[in-house]
Amino acid sequence: MALAIGVDIGGTKVAGGVVDEYGEVVARTRRATPSGSPADVEQVIGQVVAELREGHDVVAVGLGAAGIIDETRSVVRYAPNLVWRDEPLKERVEELVDLPVVVENDANAMAWAEHRFGAGQGEEHLLCLTVGTGIGGGLVLGGRLHRGAFGDGAALGHLNFVRHGRRCGCGQRGCIEQYCSGRALLREAREIADVDPRYGARLLELGEGHIEGITAEEVTKAAAEGDPAALECFAVIGAALGQCLADLSSALDPGVIVIGGGVADAGELLLDPVREEFARRLTGSAYRPHPPILHAALGNEAGLVGAADLARLG
Amino acid sequence: MALAIGVDIGGTKVAGGVVDEYGEVVARTRRATPSGSPADVEQVIGQVVAELREGHDVVAVGLGAAGIIDETRSVVRYAPNLVWRDEPLKERVEELVDLPVVVENDANAMAWAEHRFGAGQGEEHLLCLTVGTGIGGGLVLGGRLHRGAFGDGAALGHLNFVRHGRRCGCGQRGCIEQYCSGRALLREAREIADVDPRYGARLLELGEGHIEGITAEEVTKAAAEGDPAALECFAVIGAALGQCLADLSSALDPGVIVIGGGVADAGELLLDPVREEFARRLTGSAYRPHPPILHAALGNEAGLVGAADLARLG
Amino acid sequence: MALAIGVDIGGTKVAGGVVDEYGEVVARTRRATPSGSPADVEQVIGQVVAELREGHDVVAVGLGAAGIIDETRSVVRYAPNLVWRDEPLKERVEELVDLPVVVENDANAMAWAEHRFGAGQGEEHLLCLTVGTGIGGGLVLGGRLHRGAFGDGAALGHLNFVRHGRRCGCGQRGCIEQYCSGRALLREAREIADVDPRYGARLLELGEGHIEGITAEEVTKAAAEGDPAALECFAVIGAALGQCLADLSSALDPGVIVIGGGVADAGELLLDPVREEFARRLTGSAYRPHPPILHAALGNEAGLVGAADLARLG
Amino acid sequence: MALAIGVDIGGTKVAGGVVDEYGEVVARTRRATPSGSPADVEQVIGQVVAELREGHDVVAVGLGAAGIIDETRSVVRYAPNLVWRDEPLKERVEELVDLPVVVENDANAMAWAEHRFGAGQGEEHLLCLTVGTGIGGGLVLGGRLHRGAFGDGAALGHLNFVRHGRRCGCGQRGCIEQYCSGRALLREAREIADVDPRYGARLLELGEGHIEGITAEEVTKAAAEGDPAALECFAVIGAALGQCLADLSSALDPGVIVIGGGVADAGELLLDPVREEFARRLTGSAYRPHPPILHAALGNEAGLVGAADLARLG
Repeated sequence: MALAIGVDIGGTKVAGGVVDEYGEVVARTRRATPSGSPADVEQVIGQVVAELREGHDVVAVGLGAAGIIDETRSVVRYAPNLVWRDEPLKERVEELVDLPVVVENDANAMAWAEHRFGAGQGEEHLLCLTVGTGIGGGLVLGGRLHRGAFGDGAALGHLNFVRHGRRCGCGQRGCIEQYCSGRALLREAREIADVDPRYGARLLELGEGHIEGITAEEVTKAAAEGDPAALECFAVIGAALGQCLADLSSALDPGVIVIGGGVADAGELLLDPVREEFARRLTGSAYRPHPPILHAALGNEAGLVGAADLARLG
Repeated sequence: MALAIGVDIGGTKVAGGVVDEYGEVVARTRRATPSGSPADVEQVIGQVVAELREGHDVVAVGLGAAGIIDETRSVVRYAPNLVWRDEPLKERVEELVDLPVVVENDANAMAWAEHRFGAGQGEEHLLCLTVGTGIGGGLVLGGRLHRGAFGDGAALGHLNFVRHGRRCGCGQRGCIEQYCSGRALLREAREIADVDPRYGARLLELGEGHIEGITAEEVTKAAAEGDPAALECFAVIGAALGQCLADLSSALDPGVIVIGGGVADAGELLLDPVREEFARRLTGSAYRPHPPILHAALGNEAGLVGAADLARLG
Repeated sequence: MALAIGVDIGGTKVAGGVVDEYGEVVARTRRATPSGSPADVEQVIGQVVAELREGHDVVAVGLGAAGIIDETRSVVRYAPNLVWRDEPLKERVEELVDLPVVVENDANAMAWAEHRFGAGQGEEHLLCLTVGTGIGGGLVLGGRLHRGAFGDGAALGHLNFVRHGRRCGCGQRGCIEQYCSGRALLREAREIADVDPRYGARLLELGEGHIEGITAEEVTKAAAEGDPAALECFAVIGAALGQCLADLSSALDPGVIVIGGGVADAGELLLDPVREEFARRLTGSAYRPHPPILHAALGNEAGLVGAADLARLG
Repeated sequence: MALAIGVDIGGTKVAGGVVDEYGEVVARTRRATPSGSPADVEQVIGQVVAELREGHDVVAVGLGAAGIIDETRSVVRYAPNLVWRDEPLKERVEELVDLPVVVENDANAMAWAEHRFGAGQGEEHLLCLTVGTGIGGGLVLGGRLHRGAFGDGAALGHLNFVRHGRRCGCGQRGCIEQYCSGRALLREAREIADVDPRYGARLLELGEGHIEGITAEEVTKAAAEGDPAALECFAVIGAALGQCLADLSSALDPGVIVIGGGVADAGELLLDPVREEFARRLTGSAYRPHPPILHAALGNEAGLVGAADLARLG
């Protein structure tokens, strides 16, 4: 059976796994991400691959990282967590491991994994959104991963949502990422606690009396208890996300929409307001099929699984 | 040489042409669109095809029409100009002409033609926008026409631009189509003439003193003369279009953007403000290549040429 | 009993009346507005006053006109319907009639009349909005007519409602006047009929098949019949008006809000959505008294009555 | 000479002064605000008044506090910093001090002081905005303090600026207070530092590396140094403030606008972008006088001075 290794290179850890052709992870390991130069991180990647190859007949290595990967899937143009600029990652790691290497954006890898083995299995046209601190996106169109002309495809967090709105890290104002990410959830909660402490009392309590003490997990906890202020936070980001998905569905007509990432672990607390707004905002809503909006099935290992599968397929 | 026939089925005329593999139209004919039943229109299509086959060795027929075509490219689900509902057009015309038939949305066909033979030739990822009374869109992604899961792909006019904004024919409010189409251009001009007749004096003059007398052609004419009110109209719709294209570029990362349709015949009067706003609004504008924004090259026959080519390729 | 004459100078007619101290009109007359110079109009005003003085012991004359009146209530700085610029109207008419003359903006005069004798009788703080083709406003604050530092007070139609929104005659974009006036009602109706003729069928029918044939009266008629498209038009402008009034109530805390003008003749069709949005949007809505929102009581003669009363009081 | 005592009741201190008829503070004292019941605070007010009366012939006492004061200027309906509800403050303090007492909202008192002795001296129509953590407002119209029908007049921070915008403490979303207060300035700075640490480097440095460490004073300091990110923060809140003032000028036509409060101590860093946007957004901007926009002249004691003067005048 053809096995491949997937490696997820994050800001704090490098996680690797041996993945079979059914998307099962048959072996895993992880190491801390070194804080030094790209060469140090590449050494750790080499060690992870070497360790995983022991006893497994591996044909390729897929690397996933947050950032912009060039159109040849070789060079990391820019990786915010790793301070890499134009790093020829494929070449460097191939020198170390002597196996074919493919580099892919982590949200793209996750979308591919969900298309192949997860919530969107069997669907040719899949839109995948990762709702974490920021927003990541991946598109599978016509059964192929969409990478775009310059490798920047599916930067779905940067659609404009509010003209002259909140400042985004991309330099623009009003990007949807500032209205429906985990960061946005937290800001909603903290702003409510700041301007209306009585209404935000449960949130403040969970934050031990401090606005900055409130975390996204606590907003989820309060919402699960039924706290109105926390539910309002989810309603606000859910509505933004629903509008965004309605727009993307007009443009792309996906057969399924998959939502993953840390904030999506809130499950129906997030997905219910998303679906409600989506149904309300979709163009020609009454006259066309609506794609299902599903929670991602593969969890934290989706990126690793997708990177491995993309490498195996070449 | 493999020839194919393309037929553009409009509300007023049925235009057909024999197209070679270089996108050249080597013969053409046209007939008025009958106002009766779908069967009447299908008879006319049959006559057009029969006439064009005389003396040409044709392998397939491509039909283009405004509307929603199903995912098998056979059935016209809905065609606003033709009052068709779920019409099995491929089957009906194949019975009449005994050649393989492909049905395609006209904006999709145009995008394909521009990708193959026009302004976007040689570019794998192309975004094509038709700016007429409404907005039509077509996407070529990875060298293939993107049709979407339900055949509704590239309804690019229905991205939300203004929450609670202007009423759209799709039932929503604030769709971009209401802010950057020919209809939007005309509304801008008429509203200026209505609320500020002194500033809109030249527009009113061209409309022979009546607000309703102003046409899109006259707004273009006044803008070409340098009339500030008319230039403001183009600046307003150009800015909306530029924002819309910046959003779509974030999501899709096209290698080229092609703009066609009647309003685009205003050339740089439209494209200059579009490009200016696009450059201002594109995410990571300073750190990524910008796709060129070009005027469509194939004019009115793009739909016919694209439909023929899609049919020839099967 | 002290009587005064009020004269309402409109674009088509000059209407005068003798008004007693209870706001009753005890005699009336009218003439067509001459289309020539200001002097011609002033002659007609003189004739109207002369005719009305026959048999009535009149102490003063109040003139009301749409436009900007200077802070001394003497000079018409600008009157859109009369093509007047810096016309010393008080001085000119005093020469003709040999009585003290006061000039007032017509919406201010109407607000004063409603405060003294109409829907806002006995209320010290009154906000009056005239919803006609445009929006006019008048404020009575602390029992006195508010005129502002430069005589431009209560230009309530020019609060910004939508950034970069619809073009206004004042040169700005997005003024509330473009979203809740009679003109806005008509645009909503015509846009619906234009983009969605099926939904707007009843409106089109009343317009005899033409979008331009639809009038504000017909939108009201259709709404009164229960036509959903026409009701949507009132809901849209009512919501804009409700938001605007909520903002003005935050700033000014009026004891009563009075709405007059042609569009307000639709009564509850307009006032219901206004009140609903007002209650939803008023700051601290649950913790403060809400001023009643009432239909103006004095109808077309409010301007004339108010001008006369202001002149009598000096 | 007639002297009056003004007392400014804040969340942390009770500051009192003896004020003469020229607005000069001829004696002052202060005490910490007790954290207990209203009765405790009233005792402290009594002590402050008793101390200040020694050696001064005082005719009245004016009390200023943040909050909603009833229309008779006697009862504090609601004071956010003092946890008072419907406290009959005038009556209680009159029992303690045996002098006529007037209670006034602190922003109203400040507006009155600026009208009588400060930046707006001699101007009949004055609009005063206090830009601190929140936004307070006061209006002097026709030479009189405008209090409104229910004593809630001039809640100028709660005009709607962004539909569905940021949550406000008043329960609404999108109030201007959330876009141009000190709190808004700080949010802008922290959001920039959060999403774009490179651009916000100087702000982060001043905050000792922590987003929460950034204070409004440090944003002002960075802006004064010319830091682009800090200047962007002032530009954003200045533009919001300028739009808000343009709207209020349409409605009220003030002869002068005075801006005070902690954020206004940034001087031209704030006022320049305010004036620029004001000039751009004022209705009929080219055809009417623009009121000057001035920095408040009386500083921290404005509230105390205004309360004393209002009490002296009765």
